[in-house]
Amino acid sequence: MRQITAFSNPLVKQVRGLRDKKNRRREGLFVAEGLRILTEAREAGCLPRILFFAGARHPLLDALIAETEAAGGDVIETNADILHKLSGKDNPQTVLGVYAAFDTSLERVDRDEAGLWIVAQALRDPGNIGTILRTGDAVGAGGLILVDDCADPFSVEAVRASMGALFTQRIAAASWDAFLTWLRAGPGELIGTSLKASLDYQQPRYGKPAFLLVGNEQAGLPEAYEVACDTLVKIPMLGKADSLNAAVATAVMAYEIVNQWRR
Amino acid sequence: MRQITAFSNPLVKQVRGLRDKKNRRREGLFVAEGLRILTEAREAGCLPRILFFAGARHPLLDALIAETEAAGGDVIETNADILHKLSGKDNPQTVLGVYAAFDTSLERVDRDEAGLWIVAQALRDPGNIGTILRTGDAVGAGGLILVDDCADPFSVEAVRASMGALFTQRIAAASWDAFLTWLRAGPGELIGTSLKASLDYQQPRYGKPAFLLVGNEQAGLPEAYEVACDTLVKIPMLGKADSLNAAVATAVMAYEIVNQWRR
Repeated sequence: MRQITAFSNPLVKQVRGLRDKKNRRREGLFVAEGLRILTEAREAGCLPRILFFAGARHPLLDALIAETEAAGGDVIETNADILHKLSGKDNPQTVLGVYAAFDTSLERVDRDEAGLWIVAQALRDPGNIGTILRTGDAVGAGGLILVDDCADPFSVEAVRASMGALFTQRIAAASWDAFLTWLRAGPGELIGTSLKASLDYQQPRYGKPAFLLVGNEQAGLPEAYEVACDTLVKIPMLGKADSLNAAVATAVMAYEIVNQWRR
Repeated sequence: MRQITAFSNPLVKQVRGLRDKKNRRREGLFVAEGLRILTEAREAGCLPRILFFAGARHPLLDALIAETEAAGGDVIETNADILHKLSGKDNPQTVLGVYAAFDTSLERVDRDEAGLWIVAQALRDPGNIGTILRTGDAVGAGGLILVDDCADPFSVEAVRASMGALFTQRIAAASWDAFLTWLRAGPGELIGTSLKASLDYQQPRYGKPAFLLVGNEQAGLPEAYEVACDTLVKIPMLGKADSLNAAVATAVMAYEIVNQWRR
């Protein structure tokens, strides 16, 4: 353990720079904040390369410090001002970890690990990505496959919204063609939602493994992607609006699928 | 119709000030942006007091301009720079409306208007408020009752996330005691979700009118509020996490309730 209290410290500058996607990409690192999320990560077997903390000790923080040091990580005691600078938040968490980004190649996804996988297409809101990861964990999904140009799952907003599920869900990224080739090389039902579908989402009996495909927030799924789905359903809209928030629609679909399996 | 292109125009300053809650409260006004949301509002019978627009005309914009003028509203042609200043967004919408805030007194809620009402307790994220309004519209709920200190439903973030549902859902605000007194003066089942509940959310048969109570993002419902519920259920958590995003949990519950009624 060591102390850093100077804003001019190069490590402070480096970690602060991880708020930019291009720096995260280049360095293969990302930031997670808060004792709750870092503890979720630790319990999932992920320890930070660098751990910053400030203020009062807590048994969960002590465990994090001990395991990070045992794994050769850099543990740094600092102050609230530095944490504010690192996190960019007015009320920063008292703990911040810098983690190695995960390998997001599709080949690392073992579809037999779970009955349900979520596939997001061109989702642009990092908060939606994080919220979908959190939902994925809640429904026992295996992970999230990001297709086309999605928001960065390692952004601060996505990590925060995931509430730690970033560390428990498998995350992969692939082009649509690569995903479809991979999908069709094994078992799996591709399930999409569409405003144009006539089949109510509670009608089909969903099989395993199910791949739930969620489209872009504004545009929904491209038509060619809808055509590629094995099952295309609609969630009933009983009011004036014609669509749900993307993370909400994902959750409504995902709970229907796992509720069928719970029966 | 008139033109404003000067940043120094007092109206520009006034409308820009509506990004602050205290100004919205004092003036009884709020801002909504985008042709889609303003058209939803128009179709729901809500016209802006002031309508700003810039750029190309569109039949829906023409309708908005004509009806706003017919209702005595102020229609202002401006430019993208002014709209950027008003909205604070890098890529502002080309249409922005200033609306009179609604009366949010509980007495205006007629529980017979709908089978489902959503009640949010101390929800702090305006995005969640807006997303819940959007979900409420989708499930045919009557509206959203805000209990205790919630984020402002008339904030830019809430209006945006509601995608127009702010104009189609009844919105009320009340203290917990006032809400409970009002609730118990008529029919209604108060349904809460709790991590501590043992009853699965798919077990009860929900009656009308149902009042779905959603707790604060971090703390959930206070214990006394859980005790006041007629039905307390849990949404199954099949992974490591112990909770869902508040707007997601609301949607999963709301669809279960209306799905029962659809059968």
